Amino acid sequence: MSNVKIFADELPNIPWQEKPEGAIGPVWRHSENPIINRNPLKGVARIFNSAVVPYKGEFIGVFRAETVNGVPHLYLGYSKDGINWTYEEEKIQFVNEAGEPFMPRYAYDPRLIKVEDTYYIIWCTDFYGAALGLAKTTDFKTFVRLDNPFIPFNRNGVLFPRKLNGNFALLSRPSDSGHTPFGDIFISESPDLVYWGKHRHVMTKGHSQWWQSLKIGGGAAPIETSEGWLLFYHGVTGTCNGYVYSMGAAILDIENPSIVKYRSENFILTPEEWYEERGFVANVVFPCAALTDAKTGRIAIYYGAADSYVGMAFTTVDEIVEYVKEHHVDNADDATIGII
Amino acid sequence: MSNVKIFADELPNIPWQEKPEGAIGPVWRHSENPIINRNPLKGVARIFNSAVVPYKGEFIGVFRAETVNGVPHLYLGYSKDGINWTYEEEKIQFVNEAGEPFMPRYAYDPRLIKVEDTYYIIWCTDFYGAALGLAKTTDFKTFVRLDNPFIPFNRNGVLFPRKLNGNFALLSRPSDSGHTPFGDIFISESPDLVYWGKHRHVMTKGHSQWWQSLKIGGGAAPIETSEGWLLFYHGVTGTCNGYVYSMGAAILDIENPSIVKYRSENFILTPEEWYEERGFVANVVFPCAALTDAKTGRIAIYYGAADSYVGMAFTTVDEIVEYVKEHHVDNADDATIGII
Amino acid sequence: MSNVKIFADELPNIPWQEKPEGAIGPVWRHSENPIINRNPLKGVARIFNSAVVPYKGEFIGVFRAETVNGVPHLYLGYSKDGINWTYEEEKIQFVNEAGEPFMPRYAYDPRLIKVEDTYYIIWCTDFYGAALGLAKTTDFKTFVRLDNPFIPFNRNGVLFPRKLNGNFALLSRPSDSGHTPFGDIFISESPDLVYWGKHRHVMTKGHSQWWQSLKIGGGAAPIETSEGWLLFYHGVTGTCNGYVYSMGAAILDIENPSIVKYRSENFILTPEEWYEERGFVANVVFPCAALTDAKTGRIAIYYGAADSYVGMAFTTVDEIVEYVKEHHVDNADDATIGII
Amino acid sequence: MSNVKIFADELPNIPWQEKPEGAIGPVWRHSENPIINRNPLKGVARIFNSAVVPYKGEFIGVFRAETVNGVPHLYLGYSKDGINWTYEEEKIQFVNEAGEPFMPRYAYDPRLIKVEDTYYIIWCTDFYGAALGLAKTTDFKTFVRLDNPFIPFNRNGVLFPRKLNGNFALLSRPSDSGHTPFGDIFISESPDLVYWGKHRHVMTKGHSQWWQSLKIGGGAAPIETSEGWLLFYHGVTGTCNGYVYSMGAAILDIENPSIVKYRSENFILTPEEWYEERGFVANVVFPCAALTDAKTGRIAIYYGAADSYVGMAFTTVDEIVEYVKEHHVDNADDATIGII
Amino acid sequence: MSNVKIFADELPNIPWQEKPEGAIGPVWRHSENPIINRNPLKGVARIFNSAVVPYKGEFIGVFRAETVNGVPHLYLGYSKDGINWTYEEEKIQFVNEAGEPFMPRYAYDPRLIKVEDTYYIIWCTDFYGAALGLAKTTDFKTFVRLDNPFIPFNRNGVLFPRKLNGNFALLSRPSDSGHTPFGDIFISESPDLVYWGKHRHVMTKGHSQWWQSLKIGGGAAPIETSEGWLLFYHGVTGTCNGYVYSMGAAILDIENPSIVKYRSENFILTPEEWYEERGFVANVVFPCAALTDAKTGRIAIYYGAADSYVGMAFTTVDEIVEYVKEHHVDNADDATIGII
Amino acid sequence: MSNVKIFADELPNIPWQEKPEGAIGPVWRHSENPIINRNPLKGVARIFNSAVVPYKGEFIGVFRAETVNGVPHLYLGYSKDGINWTYEEEKIQFVNEAGEPFMPRYAYDPRLIKVEDTYYIIWCTDFYGAALGLAKTTDFKTFVRLDNPFIPFNRNGVLFPRKLNGNFALLSRPSDSGHTPFGDIFISESPDLVYWGKHRHVMTKGHSQWWQSLKIGGGAAPIETSEGWLLFYHGVTGTCNGYVYSMGAAILDIENPSIVKYRSENFILTPEEWYEERGFVANVVFPCAALTDAKTGRIAIYYGAADSYVGMAFTTVDEIVEYVKEHHVDNADDATIGII
Repeated sequence: MSNVKIFADELPNIPWQEKPEGAIGPVWRHSENPIINRNPLKGVARIFNSAVVPYKGEFIGVFRAETVNGVPHLYLGYSKDGINWTYEEEKIQFVNEAGEPFMPRYAYDPRLIKVEDTYYIIWCTDFYGAALGLAKTTDFKTFVRLDNPFIPFNRNGVLFPRKLNGNFALLSRPSDSGHTPFGDIFISESPDLVYWGKHRHVMTKGHSQWWQSLKIGGGAAPIETSEGWLLFYHGVTGTCNGYVYSMGAAILDIENPSIVKYRSENFILTPEEWYEERGFVANVVFPCAALTDAKTGRIAIYYGAADSYVGMAFTTVDEIVEYVKEHHVDNADDATIGII
Repeated sequence: MSNVKIFADELPNIPWQEKPEGAIGPVWRHSENPIINRNPLKGVARIFNSAVVPYKGEFIGVFRAETVNGVPHLYLGYSKDGINWTYEEEKIQFVNEAGEPFMPRYAYDPRLIKVEDTYYIIWCTDFYGAALGLAKTTDFKTFVRLDNPFIPFNRNGVLFPRKLNGNFALLSRPSDSGHTPFGDIFISESPDLVYWGKHRHVMTKGHSQWWQSLKIGGGAAPIETSEGWLLFYHGVTGTCNGYVYSMGAAILDIENPSIVKYRSENFILTPEEWYEERGFVANVVFPCAALTDAKTGRIAIYYGAADSYVGMAFTTVDEIVEYVKEHHVDNADDATIGII
Repeated sequence: MSNVKIFADELPNIPWQEKPEGAIGPVWRHSENPIINRNPLKGVARIFNSAVVPYKGEFIGVFRAETVNGVPHLYLGYSKDGINWTYEEEKIQFVNEAGEPFMPRYAYDPRLIKVEDTYYIIWCTDFYGAALGLAKTTDFKTFVRLDNPFIPFNRNGVLFPRKLNGNFALLSRPSDSGHTPFGDIFISESPDLVYWGKHRHVMTKGHSQWWQSLKIGGGAAPIETSEGWLLFYHGVTGTCNGYVYSMGAAILDIENPSIVKYRSENFILTPEEWYEERGFVANVVFPCAALTDAKTGRIAIYYGAADSYVGMAFTTVDEIVEYVKEHHVDNADDATIGII
Repeated sequence: MSNVKIFADELPNIPWQEKPEGAIGPVWRHSENPIINRNPLKGVARIFNSAVVPYKGEFIGVFRAETVNGVPHLYLGYSKDGINWTYEEEKIQFVNEAGEPFMPRYAYDPRLIKVEDTYYIIWCTDFYGAALGLAKTTDFKTFVRLDNPFIPFNRNGVLFPRKLNGNFALLSRPSDSGHTPFGDIFISESPDLVYWGKHRHVMTKGHSQWWQSLKIGGGAAPIETSEGWLLFYHGVTGTCNGYVYSMGAAILDIENPSIVKYRSENFILTPEEWYEERGFVANVVFPCAALTDAKTGRIAIYYGAADSYVGMAFTTVDEIVEYVKEHHVDNADDATIGII
Repeated sequence: MSNVKIFADELPNIPWQEKPEGAIGPVWRHSENPIINRNPLKGVARIFNSAVVPYKGEFIGVFRAETVNGVPHLYLGYSKDGINWTYEEEKIQFVNEAGEPFMPRYAYDPRLIKVEDTYYIIWCTDFYGAALGLAKTTDFKTFVRLDNPFIPFNRNGVLFPRKLNGNFALLSRPSDSGHTPFGDIFISESPDLVYWGKHRHVMTKGHSQWWQSLKIGGGAAPIETSEGWLLFYHGVTGTCNGYVYSMGAAILDIENPSIVKYRSENFILTPEEWYEERGFVANVVFPCAALTDAKTGRIAIYYGAADSYVGMAFTTVDEIVEYVKEHHVDNADDATIGII
Repeated sequence: MSNVKIFADELPNIPWQEKPEGAIGPVWRHSENPIINRNPLKGVARIFNSAVVPYKGEFIGVFRAETVNGVPHLYLGYSKDGINWTYEEEKIQFVNEAGEPFMPRYAYDPRLIKVEDTYYIIWCTDFYGAALGLAKTTDFKTFVRLDNPFIPFNRNGVLFPRKLNGNFALLSRPSDSGHTPFGDIFISESPDLVYWGKHRHVMTKGHSQWWQSLKIGGGAAPIETSEGWLLFYHGVTGTCNGYVYSMGAAILDIENPSIVKYRSENFILTPEEWYEERGFVANVVFPCAALTDAKTGRIAIYYGAADSYVGMAFTTVDEIVEYVKEHHVDNADDATIGII
């Protein structure tokens, strides 16, 4: 039993490994990482930055699959244990609200989040530039593409797992048309998933924390806990030889998540293993999904590694919340509503 | 009487000069340009890129005023003839919806548009980066700042002068955090000015029309005519010595303005006069407002010149619509809804 | 009678003004500059960077005409005095060698050079990027477009007015796909205008002469004199507010023009007048053609000004050659064949 | 016996390994890769991007050897099996056509191609910037440096193994003076290797195929087959952490190779192994030569890996041609002559 | 008699014009500006950014003279009235401390300051990059070049007119090797002009004052007053079409000038006239020297205009000090010693 | 006994391994590299680029420790053998000269050098940008921070181990505010560590030696030998995928170290091992310290690897001096005093 409560379902078959002896920090890697290797299915060179949810006692995932012509698309996968996966041979075929086929030109970095009885996919899509794509499904057979929530340029859209004050709530990271050397996390609301507004600034990149000094972006869907919304996100720093993506954690106010309650000044996972340090894009740890078991407080995080692999990391809600609170750092405007 | 109908009020006292002999193109300059010169009031170095509407038989304007510390703010001005102006000594003091003071850190490139009985100001504001600011007034005494319609980064927000299908409609140009070397015009809708969605691509920069090959942005509020929404906008090209801003014109579909019906392949005004060619930012012609007289079809356009002056230019709805239709050019996706 | 001999025809009606009192340097401007102003003909906003030759006792020119959609094309013009011009209403219609229409997507910075009995136009054309275009005419009615002499990226092609060792000879400036912040002048040969080779480096930009420290490019066709090939060219420097284009002069070896005999360390004309300092591209003096009168030694230079106007400047072969020799500067490799 | 015919010699001692079980895609790596490791000879730190031909029953190669002062030069090597190499201790000493020593300042990325009875080396040389160097030998003892075929800036010159219509034919990739973020493949012809012309555009980088969306460049000499010229080339994409070089394949028209008949939308080899993913320049697979056996249809490709190693990969003409045809993608202008 | 005391000599023949009617702001221009025009002497194209001191009842100046090969050097000039100047025909010939000739490769933006009985020139020199050059003279005949006070890269060195705590004191602006898009003012001390230390940060560019938001640099030598050291400096902003240089004023603590007492949030002169707005570098107002008359409080400022001209502007010590105090703005760290 | 004399103490317990069979070049790696691995102590993710001196018969070191929030600080460590280290748990706590706490915001790339009886630390500190920090200690308990020797921007400060002509002498590399794509080594002197001057240029980056063609910077403190000051430094080259840092060696004149006597045209160690090729910044070999034994001539070099590890390399004074002399290369100005 954890001290910090997770307000979500129990998940007895959550993938799990106990923290190894001598482990450093609040998060530890799966010993068999990477759990998804290169060339996982015909025509797909690499799977990474992908999203998983429990589904009917097993697991289902929406995967960023880099096809052999270099263009990313979304693929569906199934797993009994959350570790070993089988994939659909074809990429997900979306339809529009009229039921007609609607195929994005590319799709990457999906998140998959259940709100009430519907599963929503949010990804980075082409809308005259990089923008947020949004779709829903209830059966993982029909995927209805909804209107793009924002104009370009935007990335890293993350839906909250329940409505706030009757509205859907979405984290995103305003971006530019290229490799975006800046970026903070914002929150927006919608009564109907069609019209969006009440935009607020949530978290700033951390000037005095070099690992997240360039930009940050939401990762897994926020986890509702007795301490607030637990958010795993990525922070990026810039070296003379490129960007380095690490994982961080923050706790947002339950009522008003545009207010950051606690935020770890330290990364909680940073590229150190060969599958994180080399690959298509070296030095990337990029969380996109987390499983939780409300009973034990166990958390299993899926993260993309080097834009080439999927890794898994573990923590418990007690350990991570304690760590974030203990290493809290105040950054400009984080504790405000962010309205200017 | 013009052949093309303007669906708007008559404006018998519209500023006006007849087209001079030998004038080239469908638009001609006021002979006394610039109509607003440098140092127009104490503490303000330059006025440009500003918006004017008829008001109680005279004219009222919201002006981009570059204060002597270099920061732009919005000032109110009054004029009997639309040419000679007196200004409030203090910048516009906004309040939020609770009536409390709300002062933007900076505000520039305003548009001023009447929808039903309310006047709306849209400008470029600081929302953790350049974004659209929005406010309303009914009496030009109280200015209520509304929620920012979009997350950053965005500029050149232009409201339609009436609702479309029951929704407010807004043109904007997604941007980045700097001098933005790219950009197309999009349209978005809102039932309540709080939540925005149904984003569609309207017009692309024109690859084969060099004067608008870098970026474009909406200028004056669209003018409703029997041929469609007449839009004056700016197009930008890039030379080895900087950007050049010219004025263009397009006609959008009345029912669905995300569809471009006609669009002039040529600029209709480009920097040629000393007040357009030199100044704080050389080579800028930047329209922000237009007055129309439905009876005569006369149109008077206010445009910023070289980020230093305000110029006025004239045309008639017949002449400009004929010109745009005659010189129509098809650009990729312009004729589509722009949904991808 | 000049001391330095020009090996070319006499041209008694060469445009001419005597050097004014107090003139500085070896080159002086026409008192009525700019000789071609903005909006010279319908649909053309600006003419500049253009080429002129004597033709049947009068003058004929190929003009860079910036059309009102911003795209440059070549237009033909006629003049009795070389100063006052009338233009064809339509741009030059090229045909390929099979006689079929062949229209370049854009065409700019033409040179017009007579070799034996044929007139050649060389311009900057679109060949999957900026490249040299080449065409010929004998009657200024049929213009036959020849194969592009080089692969991209190249600009400022200048043909010699006679064959060297039985080969055509061409100066050019290898460039890149954008605004090219570097560049030297090379020479190439061809027996047939189809196949080109024997490329040699001619002149380097001048590191210790700041006015030409960024790049240089050939201007008018080399003038054969008793001292060598007299070349008017442009040199470019870079300031925090953009490039500045000045005019320079050099004398190349008659036998082997890849060898520079003399080269002025100083510019001979630099932007100082309003029509050179402001316009579409501020601070540009860009020579493209020169007329000479072998009898008097008079030289009249046509130059583009600020990418907006055509200016004319004068000198005599005696004065310019003496100046260049007197102010000669040695730059690395200039005196060599440039073969590496 | 292969179905697709290779019009070249048999090569019974071609290096060869059968396709392993479970291999993905039409090309597979040598199991002992890298076949050339670091520090292969005194004073040389790395060998990569190198060219090999059969010679007198054995093999001879021209190698890009990065000397310990960082400057690349060309070295000669000998091998009985094409895998194990011994090298000359000194770099290749060129002479000019007069027989005098002519040493390039640097030389890299050589191709080695036999046309009629002569072997030609084409490399990237210093000609006031990166340009194509060209030399010939008949005995691998005397290497005669010929005139540079083009002015700068150019790279990846690849000669066809026989004349076309009586002319030599050369692929090249116009470049800039730096790390060149753009580039297509062109073809040029020459009757005599001195004068070059008839430049045509062959292949464009592939906008919708991300692995080759930045630039492409010819690799091994085109292989004449009954289906057309089989070209192995490299395609480059850009990530936030640098370029990634993959291998692609295309089939050009036999008569007019400026026309692409088929072109694989997918890469056929991409960095996945440690020796491709890390090294002096991470993530590089760069083919420069291929051996073929007309009898069996076997093909062995030499490729540079991470600018640090030489790797070998295998395919058969049947397998690769079928793959390219099956995965053909049309890119703009590829199927045209490319003359504009 | 002024209220604020200037601790310096009286200068009855200071150039002077009374403030005109309707003048805006605390500083006004000379009605005959520019006082130095283009081509002021043979071989010199432009004079600007130059320094003047009273000398033997008249005036002497050290001028940045842009020679006709584009390289800047220092020239000496004489004037009876400070307005009309005659110049030495040759640039200043420096010697080193051993009396041997020592000629800087280039020299620009000089300041000329008398400390005790010696006149010091500080300029921007080539020391393996842009750095501070330093020389002294007592008779304006022999100019002894001293050791460069700092390693590169540095510009805008300004000496205080008397020692502080027994040490020379110098303002400077650490820069980079190019057009430097950043920069604050620092102060350093030296007991002997050989060894320098005790570096302190003085003033930051002003983030919330856009006219000086990019970089700042000291201008005229600080003027000792009863309110503190009065410093005229330049502030720079960046537009999409280049930098704009304005003039600002600040008052530093007399005892410890690394502390800013007051600093005007507004520019006090900004490019508005044709000679400031167009020229070699458009939009530059760059103060380098000021004359003062302790009796009347009159101040005459010399400033470079558009890197092409010298302008003069006037104020009084009362007016400027009052203005600075009234419009004081606090910027981060300005009020501290700046030691970190 | 070595032939070349080291003028320093004997160090019988210097870490040492004999040169292995088949080793290439004059420097060889420790067989157990990296000697310091990731996560060496709580709260520190990586140690690299660090400095070591003998101390009381054992070893003491000042380490660049990248804390888990990404900010580098300096930590003290102790070792009996120079290989196995224990560290203080807290970073070094500096005091100012008044004895008050003085904590740099960040501190990296320290050098630790004993001059007379005092140990000096020089590091890269925040002084309104990257600048040199300086502190001293005699007991490794109290660390007194001294005034920053230079204004920004500067890095790689290296003190000489004894005074020269009565002055302290310091090498440094003027830099810019970012990742600095340029840089040479300069020397400066100070009588008192407060005031610095007599700046001279020492060594240029090596244009014709590509491994050091971008920038260079001093590494270990110069070692006094009978041949001159032996300097281990780093040289950097730029590839399309980032910088590569190698190790070089030079010998400076004993009397006047601004004169380079010999300098190796080749790197002496370059990234080849996994711990040098991948990590936080791939491809970095960065020497910061060297131990010497005057008796045997043995030298042990500490170098940072990939900004993630510490490696050790060995040579002898005889071998390295002979190598440098044998492979000497003259670079522009190296042999001069560097005063301009």
